[in-house]
Amino acid sequence: MHAAPAFTLSGRHLIGIEGLSASEISGLLDLAEEFVELNRQIEKKRTTLRGRTQINLFFEASTRTQSSFEIAGKRLGADVMNMSVASSSVKKGETLIDTAITLNAMHPDILVVRHHASGAVALLARKVDCCVVNAGDGAHEHPTQALLDALTIRRNKGTIQGLTVAICGDVLHSRVARSNILLLNTLGAKVRVVAPSTLLPSGIETMGAEVFRTMEAGLDGADIVMMLRLQRERMAGSFIPSVKEYFHYFGLDEAKLRRAAPDALVMHPGPMNRGVEIDSAIADGAQSLIREQVEMGVAVRMAVLDILARKLPNA
Amino acid sequence: MHAAPAFTLSGRHLIGIEGLSASEISGLLDLAEEFVELNRQIEKKRTTLRGRTQINLFFEASTRTQSSFEIAGKRLGADVMNMSVASSSVKKGETLIDTAITLNAMHPDILVVRHHASGAVALLARKVDCCVVNAGDGAHEHPTQALLDALTIRRNKGTIQGLTVAICGDVLHSRVARSNILLLNTLGAKVRVVAPSTLLPSGIETMGAEVFRTMEAGLDGADIVMMLRLQRERMAGSFIPSVKEYFHYFGLDEAKLRRAAPDALVMHPGPMNRGVEIDSAIADGAQSLIREQVEMGVAVRMAVLDILARKLPNA
Amino acid sequence: MHAAPAFTLSGRHLIGIEGLSASEISGLLDLAEEFVELNRQIEKKRTTLRGRTQINLFFEASTRTQSSFEIAGKRLGADVMNMSVASSSVKKGETLIDTAITLNAMHPDILVVRHHASGAVALLARKVDCCVVNAGDGAHEHPTQALLDALTIRRNKGTIQGLTVAICGDVLHSRVARSNILLLNTLGAKVRVVAPSTLLPSGIETMGAEVFRTMEAGLDGADIVMMLRLQRERMAGSFIPSVKEYFHYFGLDEAKLRRAAPDALVMHPGPMNRGVEIDSAIADGAQSLIREQVEMGVAVRMAVLDILARKLPNA
Repeated sequence: MHAAPAFTLSGRHLIGIEGLSASEISGLLDLAEEFVELNRQIEKKRTTLRGRTQINLFFEASTRTQSSFEIAGKRLGADVMNMSVASSSVKKGETLIDTAITLNAMHPDILVVRHHASGAVALLARKVDCCVVNAGDGAHEHPTQALLDALTIRRNKGTIQGLTVAICGDVLHSRVARSNILLLNTLGAKVRVVAPSTLLPSGIETMGAEVFRTMEAGLDGADIVMMLRLQRERMAGSFIPSVKEYFHYFGLDEAKLRRAAPDALVMHPGPMNRGVEIDSAIADGAQSLIREQVEMGVAVRMAVLDILARKLPNA
Repeated sequence: MHAAPAFTLSGRHLIGIEGLSASEISGLLDLAEEFVELNRQIEKKRTTLRGRTQINLFFEASTRTQSSFEIAGKRLGADVMNMSVASSSVKKGETLIDTAITLNAMHPDILVVRHHASGAVALLARKVDCCVVNAGDGAHEHPTQALLDALTIRRNKGTIQGLTVAICGDVLHSRVARSNILLLNTLGAKVRVVAPSTLLPSGIETMGAEVFRTMEAGLDGADIVMMLRLQRERMAGSFIPSVKEYFHYFGLDEAKLRRAAPDALVMHPGPMNRGVEIDSAIADGAQSLIREQVEMGVAVRMAVLDILARKLPNA
Repeated sequence: MHAAPAFTLSGRHLIGIEGLSASEISGLLDLAEEFVELNRQIEKKRTTLRGRTQINLFFEASTRTQSSFEIAGKRLGADVMNMSVASSSVKKGETLIDTAITLNAMHPDILVVRHHASGAVALLARKVDCCVVNAGDGAHEHPTQALLDALTIRRNKGTIQGLTVAICGDVLHSRVARSNILLLNTLGAKVRVVAPSTLLPSGIETMGAEVFRTMEAGLDGADIVMMLRLQRERMAGSFIPSVKEYFHYFGLDEAKLRRAAPDALVMHPGPMNRGVEIDSAIADGAQSLIREQVEMGVAVRMAVLDILARKLPNA
């Protein structure tokens, strides 16, 4: 392992899927496969990032993603430090840029950043000397989620090229949807989005997604059904009439799944709202890849950290 | 050290004292003695858990217990990750089981779990592939507390067999009391519980504890006086008339302690409410083992982590 | 590096600058210089503190200082554990002393403590067996801040002896000011304090600071202009008439800075309130050392941890 790391990314950061080539994506997925194997061993420790400092800077709480990056970094031997907004200087009135410059002065090697505003991570990346990984910025991008989804699909379907993938639910507010549409198009999948009008961004077709307004039409013959999380705050707003009605029309249940291909597989980025966007029987059923997605998440993040570390000076 | 680890536990998890044999308990205490010595050295690092991932999953805050497990895991070389409910997906509506399944997919080796509901840790343990240690579940069990109490007693009294141990205070809500009653009975102590009627669970006698309703009678001739913490929320409720009256009748002071054996020793699981369940002079006095209990806590948790790690495949 | 650590501190703790000799301060700064170089490498890991346990016990939140100590400890190979008051037993009514005694029983080697009360860290230090570093106690001392400021000045001015340093702003509530006045006097600088009467402690002159009530007079010919943070809570109180008026009279802008020496340098301990105590153009300008201060912070803390670790038994 790591004998001949022929592959590198062209950029110093991973801000989004946008701008990644098909071969860069495939290279990351290939490397991640090695880490899938490693993580299934008892001895899961590498020294790739020994002596490097990784800071997880989360302006938005996310147990799942932060844990995944923390485990990834620690398994590669990095010193990992978590900084959450709750205990941060931001509360004391410090600006995003000052926070970035302050952290930068501590000489981290990798910053993993989540922020509620689209574009904030790219802005921050321009102010620092280290590698920056976007762990989700507003409704913009969440590149490691799209990579882990792609890895999960590729392992189960053999390829992504030519598959029909239906992304369903709150597309409007979803960085997961955006990053997935970009990645799946780059690797040659046919992408559909399925959502009520209130949860569809305008101009989504120009990103390379075919729009459907009913699950019945959108799932017809699909190979992959990718459900999106409905944020709690949308439930109380004017985006959907009621949780019950949302589940009736857009929640994935057995009847709707039957419209997809017989060997269709079901995905969800988690955490799930069971009975809201997905029925429990489907979430736990034979067609569900949801657990595997979490496993792939750690492997993909190890691959990203590993590959970015190769871009560091002296490395 | 660790040359001939002849001893293992029969189960993969440590959910409670219930089900442990006397020889399993003694084996754990013997192993913990080795870690007591290690922790008194300057170089306290072992590589036993190198490459293993330990997740401390606390649905209930507990600085003391979490710190003790964190130090224990780090000293054994594990990658330790803390997840507290405050920043967890549980707030986003994820179920306990989904949290368990998600964490499990990240391939931790050991999960240390505290939960406010009795039985939650056992439920979670059935859903994961790794070892689970109960760090306290509702009013059910807190096995490492009972083990550290036993180690403290054994080191000071030479044996547990035949000792009279009085457990005093809020027995009703206490997992500490429950685990201690089970362990002390298994090792042959005579166990008494001393509490007002409002803080006594019904049927406690069937667990092997003699019931007393006054400190004067309950402490008479006792070798060990184990005080329980009175939870703040009980103080405002209808369980006790007032803090002052509680201290008068059930708080351990010098007069009450005089009823116990002349060489009686005093214990408390912490954190203490000085002047509520225990007088400061007693807490800091010559008969108090309270500081030693904390020290034994780290050692016992290292022993538990070490012994469970031996149950892991390939280990 | 570390071949001949001829230098040690006379005390086991670092509670304040008070009591440190000029040669102890210079020794710490010299050692810190080595860590400045180390931190600029890719491989930043030392094994100096391997097997040692460092606990960061913060009764007051401070991302910047805590992160700096955490990175410092991890780069030296320590097992670092963060304990913040938010999740601490203090909330359960435990006293400071009980917290200290409890942590002490877990055999940490180094405790880094921040507390809102002046003197609390010294009190705690008397109850434990390990080394204690004061990371800020009330309005008393913040010794590592003064050390990092001194290191920053020395690297830019070559020496501290003979420089005129103006400390400006909320001197009354500032442990940073207090520690800096002590250190700068010890190393032979001329120290001025500049503040409105409401933010000046009585008797500050006896500490060796010349008092000025206007920026124009206080900055006249100064080599170093050290701005203090105005705490948010002071802004709403009766200490200043309004934020706008405060900036007008005491905020550092280009006009005021022109009163200082032509090669004067500007410092701020962070986090900054831009437009309150300092103008953005100055904070980001050519005379600002603010970023370098953060970098020096990690190096100074590594030096302090390293030097105190040499005081540990067996070390």
